Amino acid sequence: MGAAGEAVQGEPWSSDTKRSGDGEDPAKETEREEGNRADEMFWKPSDQSTERRRVICCEQRCSRFRELSKEPHLATSPRDEALVQLLLQRWQDPESGLDSARTTEYEVLLSFPSEEQPNRVDVVNSTGAILFSCRHSEENLTGEQGGPNVVPPYAAYAPPGTPQGPLVYANQGSEEDFKELQNKGVKLQDSIVLTRYGGVGRGAKAVNAAKYGVIGVLVYTDPKDINDGKSLPNETFPHSWCLPPSGVERGSYFEYFGDPLTPYLPAMPSSFRLNSDNASGFPPIPIQPIGFEDAQVLLCNLGGNLAPADWQGGLGCDYNLGPGFRSNGTFPEDSQVNVSVHNRLELRNSSNVLGIIRGAVEPDRYVLYGNHRDSWVHGAVDPSTGTAVLLELSRVLGTLLKKGTWRPRRSIVFASWGAEEFGLIGSTEFTEEFFSKLQERAVAYINVDISVFANATLRVQGTPPIQSVVFSAAKQISAPGSSGLSIYDNWIRYYNRSSSVYGLVPSVGTLGAGSDYAPFIHFLGISSMDIAYTYDRSKTSARIYPTYHTAFDTFDYVNKFLDPGFTSHQAVARTAGSVLLRLSDSLFLPLNVSDYSETLRSFLQAAENLRVPLEQHNISLGPLVTAVEKFEGAATSLNQRIATLQKGTSDPLQVRMINDQLMLLERTFLNSQAFPEERYYSHVLWAPRTGSVATFPGLSNAYSQAESTGHEPAAWAEVQRQLSIVVAALEGAAATLRPVADL
Amino acid sequence: MGAAGEAVQGEPWSSDTKRSGDGEDPAKETEREEGNRADEMFWKPSDQSTERRRVICCEQRCSRFRELSKEPHLATSPRDEALVQLLLQRWQDPESGLDSARTTEYEVLLSFPSEEQPNRVDVVNSTGAILFSCRHSEENLTGEQGGPNVVPPYAAYAPPGTPQGPLVYANQGSEEDFKELQNKGVKLQDSIVLTRYGGVGRGAKAVNAAKYGVIGVLVYTDPKDINDGKSLPNETFPHSWCLPPSGVERGSYFEYFGDPLTPYLPAMPSSFRLNSDNASGFPPIPIQPIGFEDAQVLLCNLGGNLAPADWQGGLGCDYNLGPGFRSNGTFPEDSQVNVSVHNRLELRNSSNVLGIIRGAVEPDRYVLYGNHRDSWVHGAVDPSTGTAVLLELSRVLGTLLKKGTWRPRRSIVFASWGAEEFGLIGSTEFTEEFFSKLQERAVAYINVDISVFANATLRVQGTPPIQSVVFSAAKQISAPGSSGLSIYDNWIRYYNRSSSVYGLVPSVGTLGAGSDYAPFIHFLGISSMDIAYTYDRSKTSARIYPTYHTAFDTFDYVNKFLDPGFTSHQAVARTAGSVLLRLSDSLFLPLNVSDYSETLRSFLQAAENLRVPLEQHNISLGPLVTAVEKFEGAATSLNQRIATLQKGTSDPLQVRMINDQLMLLERTFLNSQAFPEERYYSHVLWAPRTGSVATFPGLSNAYSQAESTGHEPAAWAEVQRQLSIVVAALEGAAATLRPVADL
Repeated sequence: MGAAGEAVQGEPWSSDTKRSGDGEDPAKETEREEGNRADEMFWKPSDQSTERRRVICCEQRCSRFRELSKEPHLATSPRDEALVQLLLQRWQDPESGLDSARTTEYEVLLSFPSEEQPNRVDVVNSTGAILFSCRHSEENLTGEQGGPNVVPPYAAYAPPGTPQGPLVYANQGSEEDFKELQNKGVKLQDSIVLTRYGGVGRGAKAVNAAKYGVIGVLVYTDPKDINDGKSLPNETFPHSWCLPPSGVERGSYFEYFGDPLTPYLPAMPSSFRLNSDNASGFPPIPIQPIGFEDAQVLLCNLGGNLAPADWQGGLGCDYNLGPGFRSNGTFPEDSQVNVSVHNRLELRNSSNVLGIIRGAVEPDRYVLYGNHRDSWVHGAVDPSTGTAVLLELSRVLGTLLKKGTWRPRRSIVFASWGAEEFGLIGSTEFTEEFFSKLQERAVAYINVDISVFANATLRVQGTPPIQSVVFSAAKQISAPGSSGLSIYDNWIRYYNRSSSVYGLVPSVGTLGAGSDYAPFIHFLGISSMDIAYTYDRSKTSARIYPTYHTAFDTFDYVNKFLDPGFTSHQAVARTAGSVLLRLSDSLFLPLNVSDYSETLRSFLQAAENLRVPLEQHNISLGPLVTAVEKFEGAATSLNQRIATLQKGTSDPLQVRMINDQLMLLERTFLNSQAFPEERYYSHVLWAPRTGSVATFPGLSNAYSQAESTGHEPAAWAEVQRQLSIVVAALEGAAATLRPVADL
Repeated sequence: MGAAGEAVQGEPWSSDTKRSGDGEDPAKETEREEGNRADEMFWKPSDQSTERRRVICCEQRCSRFRELSKEPHLATSPRDEALVQLLLQRWQDPESGLDSARTTEYEVLLSFPSEEQPNRVDVVNSTGAILFSCRHSEENLTGEQGGPNVVPPYAAYAPPGTPQGPLVYANQGSEEDFKELQNKGVKLQDSIVLTRYGGVGRGAKAVNAAKYGVIGVLVYTDPKDINDGKSLPNETFPHSWCLPPSGVERGSYFEYFGDPLTPYLPAMPSSFRLNSDNASGFPPIPIQPIGFEDAQVLLCNLGGNLAPADWQGGLGCDYNLGPGFRSNGTFPEDSQVNVSVHNRLELRNSSNVLGIIRGAVEPDRYVLYGNHRDSWVHGAVDPSTGTAVLLELSRVLGTLLKKGTWRPRRSIVFASWGAEEFGLIGSTEFTEEFFSKLQERAVAYINVDISVFANATLRVQGTPPIQSVVFSAAKQISAPGSSGLSIYDNWIRYYNRSSSVYGLVPSVGTLGAGSDYAPFIHFLGISSMDIAYTYDRSKTSARIYPTYHTAFDTFDYVNKFLDPGFTSHQAVARTAGSVLLRLSDSLFLPLNVSDYSETLRSFLQAAENLRVPLEQHNISLGPLVTAVEKFEGAATSLNQRIATLQKGTSDPLQVRMINDQLMLLERTFLNSQAFPEERYYSHVLWAPRTGSVATFPGLSNAYSQAESTGHEPAAWAEVQRQLSIVVAALEGAAATLRPVADL
């Protein structure tokens, strides 16, 4: 608090920037001296040594972060509600608060393990006697992993049940994995399968398994996948950042996102709710996650044939397929695994906290910035690293606001989402409740969930128009550490690509459905991004930071292993803050729509590989080529118009018209008829792609389907339909970018 | 031409009104002297006697109208294409054209009778000998009804087939009618039914019939329904406006609108097309329309029991039900009716013509004005009365534009739609092609299809926000004739209602799917209206003007019977022109969103009647009541803000923000998930209502369904779902109207 507070004291925005966006050339902004930028204010840089920085951090800056992560705050728990109040108070603070703040509450369906009947995983012999039991909770290694508020490991939304059967190892539980087991003659009917995290989504493991008659699923995190192979207690937390043997990844096993009972409707108490028996997307069979310590006991005792090489892992034994245990192992051969799941579905009230800074010039244009508040356990990394950045940004801007020296051109909406861990529920309900208003007015959505996975480099996911504003911000801010590089120059060393337009640039990833940006981009068509600091991928192959969703994701873990001195937090805060300010304050929106052209070209190039088989089915790529060219032409011309206007003094309405084109471009890619089976997904460029060709997702998926079904006319008709949908979307996008009075 | 041209010469807009919308108070506009209004310019009023006026008209004003209706111009026919060029030339005229004009072409599925094998309706005896044949074409009474370009009467999209069976009279072919026949024990299986136009849609007669095993359908227009009972040659055209005995109403029997093969996609040549076998919405069995002269021969010879009293008509005999002919009639009792339909589906290129006047201040806001161009035969009334108004408005505004003395604040888009008669095809494809652009920018859509049904009074259909601007226009313009009344004061004498807000006002009707406004309001959520002059309902009970869709809808018919002197044309041109100018030129959009409150209150009041049964199924109206109240409050406050702003000089961006709220309100009522079975319909207030309770259509329909299925839980769940959809829409609408920086 002190250091950041000092920044506000020492470098307030000068009053002549009060409406800096109005009439100013944003291109010039990048040339300003760094010290003049508001983004300088977020957690002032420090040149202390790592150890010294850590101490300083904990004395000066980290009390808020410690507060956020000091207790488990599972969605809708008393502590989650306490954090709602904390956020609300901060945003209503007379000295550093926002213009206004409020909570919105939704009644949503969550899933919890039974307190009376803990979930169990046991090995039982033929008489039913228990030979071995998996842990019910993680080991309390540092004193932080115990207590009544640590929810035991479970698979949220897994149905209750007590299946028992011989154990089979099913690798990652993908469709291919089960096909391979079937091909190898491994009996799956009435078995329990043990799967590794990774490869496919959590819930998909149970969906795939059930198709083969499997009656229960176990999931564990293999040390090979998360710890770069390390599995011993003295190699893992608290001795390193690695996952300890008892650590278990919790998670939601719900297939969709949003409240399961109120798709497309805000989950108001009075809203129509599906009967939970009629709701879809829940795992069809019981599933339970376990630690690799317990998985080792099960897996290293399995009988049957040796699993394929790429199914092997880091538990220090050969992984066999089963079914059942080997003859010379710990358990009698005919022992079985009993899985007892007693999860309960419960309607709970979950809150979002919303705070707004009213725009000075265009209050009806919203730049949204959010992250979730709920965690599985303490959630120091996930999401408190993000919540800390949220609070810092809102505090610094709120302080300027209350001093009366600054107000952005556009409105800024800060959001703390509830129940993200159960399936992006708070954010999705928000987009449902404010669908029209957001569709009309939202400029962009910035998501900072986990702000620091590790301290090597910036990592950004987003749609193409946000690339330029992120680059501008990242070029202006120093990377943490002593390299002297900008965040941009550091970033390009870790993640880069060769752009046909710009040459070598940092690579911006695409947006799936991993955090709260999903409803914004897929359902509402709002240009979105997710910003974090992350790993050096040459140093670790961990799927994610090792204590993800476990009881070991604590304050000390962040402070000691992820971001000593919290300099990466600072880097993210300054980068995201700069992006936020540029979006809310630039005269012309810093969304470069022309950057979509590279994406379209790459999709088109991939589609060209299908030209021959498509033509064999009388499907022409000609209209797609034309549509991409039209888009490129319209985007280039629009950029030229902007450049010309930037040279003179612009009529406010002219600027607004251009900005509306920039803002609404992303909306033009939505088509509610495109993917009738996919809940919320309507963005024809970013819907989930399951097909193998890296082209437009609808085309790719339909093509794969048509290929696999041979020459079924209906399948090829769907290929043509998807192609026409893309063409119509691109033609519509080009129409939105062309001069507004063109016919 | 001369008189209107004179108006332009004599009363050009003074140059100081060039950007009259900018900074001007529209409330004051209504107080201006009439002579200053541009709407004065459309076809200057005349005080000549009726006969003299008719002569003057034909000399001075009607050459264009005569040109438009001089030849049949069925959609995509050479004459239709010639009119495309005519419109294009007018809109590109250097003296009186628009800023730009172009055509857009779609490849759409139309349906035509075979030229080689005319459709036939015959009475045949048991050996197959033909005893009687219905006419293949209408009688050439005035020399205008013959010729190769008069398409013979047919039911567009009726499938080919040659069913033969005993004849049954089925009244209007509604579901209730067939139920009644079944209840009376009339054998419907394998019969041919004869039905009257009216009651239900054209295609519905065949859909309903097929459910009872009927194999062919005939349709005719009963003199009771169209001619106030008159049926004799000397009582009908050319001796009066009544339909002659041989007149046959053509029409589309397609259930939906838009191109049948490309729902939700613009019908570009390259677009995905359904196989016509897979397309839905076509009549399931052959159907053929006939004149009442032929219907009389069939119906007056029917046997069986006497039809119910309200099934009787004006053919001068008792209508029996059949099946089959009576024993003492013209035909042997065992004679049957053979229906030979040889219609063919054809892909044809249909054009829209688009012309634009670029807005001076907000070129990205579009006021759309359109009507269709295609007719069934000569189409003097339908649509040439509308096309004439379209051309007059565009000519007057184009002339001002080319003189450089005027340019509206917002852009005006004129449109001449193709293939409306086949199912609003041109307009629907337009909304599909420009979906995003229109959704972003369209202020309102004005439709003037048939501009003059008769010369008694104005008749307007539209959504509530357009009421105020239509009233303002109508108050300022003199009604035709010598009454001295304004159009408004004349209107209120014919159609009125008691408004809780305003007292007695003219009643504005609601929008179904009868003309090209349908895709704009139902699919795109654009505030829309349809404007015409029409009947004195105390003087005729005709369903519509009697020669509708027949070969008798000719120039002379209009000139002699509908609008001698073309003064009603002028009244519509001036009213629609004034509405167009107000929408395109007022500083604040003249859309009174508060006028939706009365509609919502009336829907809510109707819903209150369901409170008890709803509560029995645990469905509460509480949230609906709250949502309506929120809407009312937000709308009232917004109007107050506008009134306050109108008192001062307004910041252009403030005005734009308010106008965006007004423009986008209608969009907030769309929900693409609301009616998954209804193609294009997504407006939760104006979707088709089949339920008997006059409340929100989704609620009404679901309630009726639940009532009729007894206590089926899924049906009551749908009632709750529909209620939640309405609540969410109203909450979203209120959010759009509230101050933009409110959370």
